[in-house]
Amino acid sequence: MVFCLTGFLGANAQEWANFRGMQRIVSPEVKGNTVTFRLNAPNATAVSVSGSWKTAERSVAMTKDTSGVWSASISGLVPELYNYTFSVDGVGLTDPSNPQNSIRDGSRFMSIFIISGPTADLYASVLDVPHGNLEKVWYKSPTLNLTRRMYVYTPAGYEEGTTKYPVFYLLHGMGGDEDAWSSMGRAVQILDNMIAAGKAKPMIVVMTNGNANQAAATIDYAAAQTQGAMGGTTTGLFEKSIIDDVIPFIDKNYRTLTDPQNRAIAGLSMGGAQTSYAALNNIDKFAWVGSFSGAFVMWPNARGTSGQGSQGINMEAVEKTVFPSLNSSANSKLKLLYIAIGSDDSLIESNRQFTDWLKTKNINHTYIDTPGYAHEWSYWRVCLVDFAGKLFK
Amino acid sequence: MVFCLTGFLGANAQEWANFRGMQRIVSPEVKGNTVTFRLNAPNATAVSVSGSWKTAERSVAMTKDTSGVWSASISGLVPELYNYTFSVDGVGLTDPSNPQNSIRDGSRFMSIFIISGPTADLYASVLDVPHGNLEKVWYKSPTLNLTRRMYVYTPAGYEEGTTKYPVFYLLHGMGGDEDAWSSMGRAVQILDNMIAAGKAKPMIVVMTNGNANQAAATIDYAAAQTQGAMGGTTTGLFEKSIIDDVIPFIDKNYRTLTDPQNRAIAGLSMGGAQTSYAALNNIDKFAWVGSFSGAFVMWPNARGTSGQGSQGINMEAVEKTVFPSLNSSANSKLKLLYIAIGSDDSLIESNRQFTDWLKTKNINHTYIDTPGYAHEWSYWRVCLVDFAGKLFK
Repeated sequence: MVFCLTGFLGANAQEWANFRGMQRIVSPEVKGNTVTFRLNAPNATAVSVSGSWKTAERSVAMTKDTSGVWSASISGLVPELYNYTFSVDGVGLTDPSNPQNSIRDGSRFMSIFIISGPTADLYASVLDVPHGNLEKVWYKSPTLNLTRRMYVYTPAGYEEGTTKYPVFYLLHGMGGDEDAWSSMGRAVQILDNMIAAGKAKPMIVVMTNGNANQAAATIDYAAAQTQGAMGGTTTGLFEKSIIDDVIPFIDKNYRTLTDPQNRAIAGLSMGGAQTSYAALNNIDKFAWVGSFSGAFVMWPNARGTSGQGSQGINMEAVEKTVFPSLNSSANSKLKLLYIAIGSDDSLIESNRQFTDWLKTKNINHTYIDTPGYAHEWSYWRVCLVDFAGKLFK
Repeated sequence: MVFCLTGFLGANAQEWANFRGMQRIVSPEVKGNTVTFRLNAPNATAVSVSGSWKTAERSVAMTKDTSGVWSASISGLVPELYNYTFSVDGVGLTDPSNPQNSIRDGSRFMSIFIISGPTADLYASVLDVPHGNLEKVWYKSPTLNLTRRMYVYTPAGYEEGTTKYPVFYLLHGMGGDEDAWSSMGRAVQILDNMIAAGKAKPMIVVMTNGNANQAAATIDYAAAQTQGAMGGTTTGLFEKSIIDDVIPFIDKNYRTLTDPQNRAIAGLSMGGAQTSYAALNNIDKFAWVGSFSGAFVMWPNARGTSGQGSQGINMEAVEKTVFPSLNSSANSKLKLLYIAIGSDDSLIESNRQFTDWLKTKNINHTYIDTPGYAHEWSYWRVCLVDFAGKLFK
């Protein structure tokens, strides 16, 4: 560009500055298993970086060079998608030099980077694979008396063809909303990359808002927050809306396979509890059911007065309240009942109790207890990859 | 909720903290025409807030109370959507207490708030109106040799009906991408609110990526940046891709009215130059054409060697290069050729030159020179409201 644009750039002056090399800070810089962070803060007194790594302290002090740029490196990182934020004199912020500056996780924003490796590479935004579309879709929920929003992923090729697709309903955790699985959850990248590699069947993925009194994510609809961003429940009402409102809408407006063999549901934490509630009470609807770090403590009466341990649940009360009629006849309908939890998750006791109860009911299931993971996004992405790879086969 | 969730919240602990009242900072707080900002930063030395207001200094120092919370108020704000960021000891950040914390503008992120008023209210995310859907759509561009992404807005009711809709192609400016009009541009809110109020016809809005060598926005596809986030051009190639690739894709995959009376195109800054280039060379395609603060200086040969003024353009060279065959026969095809620019925009001279040239060619057009606006989002939103309200009538 030979002409002079100075003076009219207005809102995009920073982009221009970056382009012109006026700001040359590279952050994060990933080389092998080492990441280096940099932040220009000549007037700051103390700068640190905090992130989701486990091989170093969560918060690492940064040091200032003579030009006022603070930096820190972390080595020995295992392949993973990491999130991080800076702290400048005690105030948190995302990384202004990172194009993936502000990835939303509920009410917070974080920057991200990836250390390459077999599973972590599935989280990357790869240009050179076919891409599915992601739509923010409004629908009526008579059950919840709200017009609500969900995100719908349609796989690459959906628009060009006439094929009908299986559908995977994917639920978020407490503090999240319909935006969660496609931001920190990387669901779009994971599905694009897995489908392109033949590791998952092409499928539609429906990401609902599991906060029963919330119409849409607060980032777009701040007013929705007045209804309570923490409106997540497992009272059965949201679960009913999945069956009565969401599935009919999806089957009407998308080219779907509508038999239960082609319908899956899974969720993380609160969404795992909602998933089990919805699916195991509607055993003719879903053949594929997954709970990732299920917050079964949220089931009605799970944390009653009968003296269960601090992390445990009262399965007798849960059975009466939530699963009064579940029995081994479910086995003929379920292709997969998948209960996964990290070994370091404080919810593990309640997950064991639930799967022990499933055993007493002779209900077939897969229980996965994964060492090295707590209650965290890194695990839910691993679960999504594992579960999605098993579906509809 | 009577059960104890402590210990498993993991990634959403902050949300929980907010809910429990452990962090009670309200920011921004809007009362009438006054906004108050607050930031908890007990260890910071200097905190300020900078924003897009014009009735106060752009950067306002904040003061610390005894609890370590910094605050500042700005009064007398005219109705508008304002963007702002904090500076903590010289480092910029968004407002962690604002649900609309990180609204993307190219490579930067900003927090926003609205001072209520007739036009500003059209920018608000209103729950209580019918909502259109927004889809991130991938399409093949043989012209640009890329598989690329665009955003497509379909109006409320699109899914339920069989109606065909007019289509409005809406282009961003330099430093922006396909994400721009739906983030800082508030196109979704504007269309939802205008359509609900009967101020605009229901229409499909297609928001393309005008950086000819970029597949998708860098926030999702950071790798795309290696091809040059500043790849915006007005060489005619991107413009050709609109005609040859984008329009056929949209007409094939959406229920569109395909006659030129039902097709509009407009853009801001670079997008205004691209719009004029594309539309006035394809006069049988678009009956409605708009340029908002058009960066006509970007046209090929506009800033040649022939000694035009510092902000002016060489219309003789532009005519030969860009518009060799445009003449008054266009008047029978064009319903509206809309050229709008703020009086304080340094591009105003080139906009006057272009419209003077249109006069010499006897091409009907509407020229709007709006006092009080420079090269800024507040003006482009005003233009969108004004232009969208005239379309397809």
